[in-house]
Amino acid sequence: MKAAKMIRYDWTNLRADVVGSGQGLTPADLDAHRPAARAAVERIGARVDRGELGFPGLPFDKAALAEVERYARAQRGRYHWVLVLGIGGSALGAFALDAAANGPRPFRKKKVPAELVVLDNVDPLILGRALDQLDPRRTLVLVITKSGSTAETMSQFLIVYDWLRKKVGAKKAARQVAAVTDPKKGDLLEIARSEGFALFAVPPNVGGRFSVLTPVGLLPAALVGVNIRQLMAGAGSVVEDCRKPELESNLALASALHQFLLDTRYGKNIQAVYCYSNALYPLAFWYRQLWTESLGKQRDRKQREVFCGQTCVAALGVTDQHSQSQLYMEGPRNKVITFWEVERNPYAIRIPRLFPKRDSTGYLGGRTLNELFRAEKFATELAFTEAGRPNCSLVFPLADEHAIGQMMMLAEFQTAYAGEFYDINAFDQPGVELGKQLTYALLGRAGFDAERARIAAYRKQKAALLKR
Amino acid sequence: MKAAKMIRYDWTNLRADVVGSGQGLTPADLDAHRPAARAAVERIGARVDRGELGFPGLPFDKAALAEVERYARAQRGRYHWVLVLGIGGSALGAFALDAAANGPRPFRKKKVPAELVVLDNVDPLILGRALDQLDPRRTLVLVITKSGSTAETMSQFLIVYDWLRKKVGAKKAARQVAAVTDPKKGDLLEIARSEGFALFAVPPNVGGRFSVLTPVGLLPAALVGVNIRQLMAGAGSVVEDCRKPELESNLALASALHQFLLDTRYGKNIQAVYCYSNALYPLAFWYRQLWTESLGKQRDRKQREVFCGQTCVAALGVTDQHSQSQLYMEGPRNKVITFWEVERNPYAIRIPRLFPKRDSTGYLGGRTLNELFRAEKFATELAFTEAGRPNCSLVFPLADEHAIGQMMMLAEFQTAYAGEFYDINAFDQPGVELGKQLTYALLGRAGFDAERARIAAYRKQKAALLKR
Repeated sequence: MKAAKMIRYDWTNLRADVVGSGQGLTPADLDAHRPAARAAVERIGARVDRGELGFPGLPFDKAALAEVERYARAQRGRYHWVLVLGIGGSALGAFALDAAANGPRPFRKKKVPAELVVLDNVDPLILGRALDQLDPRRTLVLVITKSGSTAETMSQFLIVYDWLRKKVGAKKAARQVAAVTDPKKGDLLEIARSEGFALFAVPPNVGGRFSVLTPVGLLPAALVGVNIRQLMAGAGSVVEDCRKPELESNLALASALHQFLLDTRYGKNIQAVYCYSNALYPLAFWYRQLWTESLGKQRDRKQREVFCGQTCVAALGVTDQHSQSQLYMEGPRNKVITFWEVERNPYAIRIPRLFPKRDSTGYLGGRTLNELFRAEKFATELAFTEAGRPNCSLVFPLADEHAIGQMMMLAEFQTAYAGEFYDINAFDQPGVELGKQLTYALLGRAGFDAERARIAAYRKQKAALLKR
Repeated sequence: MKAAKMIRYDWTNLRADVVGSGQGLTPADLDAHRPAARAAVERIGARVDRGELGFPGLPFDKAALAEVERYARAQRGRYHWVLVLGIGGSALGAFALDAAANGPRPFRKKKVPAELVVLDNVDPLILGRALDQLDPRRTLVLVITKSGSTAETMSQFLIVYDWLRKKVGAKKAARQVAAVTDPKKGDLLEIARSEGFALFAVPPNVGGRFSVLTPVGLLPAALVGVNIRQLMAGAGSVVEDCRKPELESNLALASALHQFLLDTRYGKNIQAVYCYSNALYPLAFWYRQLWTESLGKQRDRKQREVFCGQTCVAALGVTDQHSQSQLYMEGPRNKVITFWEVERNPYAIRIPRLFPKRDSTGYLGGRTLNELFRAEKFATELAFTEAGRPNCSLVFPLADEHAIGQMMMLAEFQTAYAGEFYDINAFDQPGVELGKQLTYALLGRAGFDAERARIAAYRKQKAALLKR
């Protein structure tokens, strides 16, 4: 077997000598941070070796992979729909893998073993429509929540499970549900056991947004035809490099440092992922969660207020050249652009030589669409560079499972290392607790009286303001 | 007929006495800008009255509406697919209107007269798949480009028209294409005339991103069943208020000033649209283009370098509470959040009382999904407010055509007024010219030798950097 091609990282346009002084990185910047980079690798490595951080080991867990494959094989042909109930880290990975392997809607790969539906919201419209239109006998339900208690997912589960039981009977319904959750604790675990659902574990040392290579992402992916073996092989293929202490041989480490320096020294507090591939675009939203939820933190590890974290935004090339490029070119100099580009596109489409004498069509005839697509990416990169807007490119050899596996692992290591540079905890999300508690209070859950008092006070204040 | 309900704007949480000093607006801020606000209304009003700015008059152009309706009626039942070839302002409106009226994929309203496909990219994958899977006899092609020469749209047009002619014959093919373009000039206009396509005009005084209420948006919308009469009625219903000089009676003016002040005085250079509605979510991307492409400018009207413009980002509630809220709550204090909320949801779904004794399910049983949905929005709003993060809410009475029409017109006026506050030209996009020229150069179009020389120099520099 030929060695699989690897993702390349071209960061020449992040250099101050290319994009201008004060807009990019200098050799001194990087040299000054080599000790910090080495320390980051050591600290993350130690946590991996102690078993605190599980994500780097996932591609090597053959048993977990085999279990998912076995289950997916057994379901093959039995369902038309794979309905995922999950949100955030329990949804974004499945979306990304499905789109990359099967294509964006409405035109998918012709032979998809089952259609993925991810209900990652509680908007009554989408759940209502789904239940009106899904065939309950041909729907496999995956309930995915690490904690086993996420309000959105549990509500959906109650509604969908009730619907399924009424439509196909209690006994069959239980066989049409699989749960993915913590292996030791939580309500979903206990419900799954008592109802007899198929059950898959999220390793306790893998956080939600790092869990795509656990059954959280693997199970829906395998059921809709993603080659998860190739995905894991791709992810596994970069782990060794991701643990090297030198910037030159560790893409994840180098890119983490670049973003950190551009943010903290040069004011690039927005990272725009400019994805030149419709198939990869949902992966940009997966990345957006990983990067922003990990790094957007009020306090560092010494409990100092830092309010740090780049805002990651997703743009689609070439589409958003007609929507976002104007701002990226001319607006505030607070952005670094990370292009995602795919070298090889499976569709070769030649533009026919129709209307050859006209200005706006003559030069296009005879070219391929991919030539136009790649030319526009190159032109955008050059235009940003000439405008002094720092940009770099991640070049995927192909938008296939192997490359996506690489990207996912690279991004997870990159995020972990960035957390070290910012000196924050990249693995928690304290900022969303308050919203959850207030929601519980609003819905009358026991034990949230203090929050109910806060809500009443807020309503009173607001009414007074609106009256004035 | 009952008077239709109007969009409300609640901006109490933008006030400094609510979110904290230095984080929000003071009465003095607003009072100081009343003259500027009045001047903005006068200047924009004068341009409207002189016929330079056409967007406010569009809802009152009954002839244009009737022409689109007539054409759409004649096509009814003849096509399964409406294939839009367009990009940026020629695509985002159609997407938004279709999703709002027919629902997000894959679960749409049951009776859609035709399925919309917008190919707003030149990624060969999506065009290749589309041509493999579309039935050419059942596909109506809309080619939409105001200039009549957009590279992406013209390439797609050449490929799709060639495909159509080969599949159904030249005579039929020409009848299956409609062109939307400038009424006086451009290659598409001439091609449409010589081929005998149906032809619709974009008024010359309406720019691409302000053109959704011209045939650019109306034609695809009408063909897929959007009630464009209601849409226009909604848009028309806010025009009078949008021209009032007082902040208190002009939502567009007040919200433009609020965003401008929060950006320029309080460092809120990111506006996050937090859309609590799956049906409205694509509208957030339409808004994102409008806001950022209009306001992201290097120079003001006196040609001073200003590098201005908020970065608008789109988030989906509640989904992105599990992806973006952590950053919005704890990250850099550079954001203002604009919630979009819908008061009435057509689906009433009750959460069943299953597993009533468990902590994470007991409190949910008996509630409706909409209660949960709205509670989460309220909780998020309150959490942001307590964290000193300025936020405001646009409350849609219903996600229907009337409300969306209102929103589109409000947003266009808001953008025009913001342009006045920033003192920039909100109606051009000079920053994307360079990228276009470089693309032409790369594809060998005549007359771009200077650009080809720049490309050669860049390649040489890059090769040298990569060698070192």
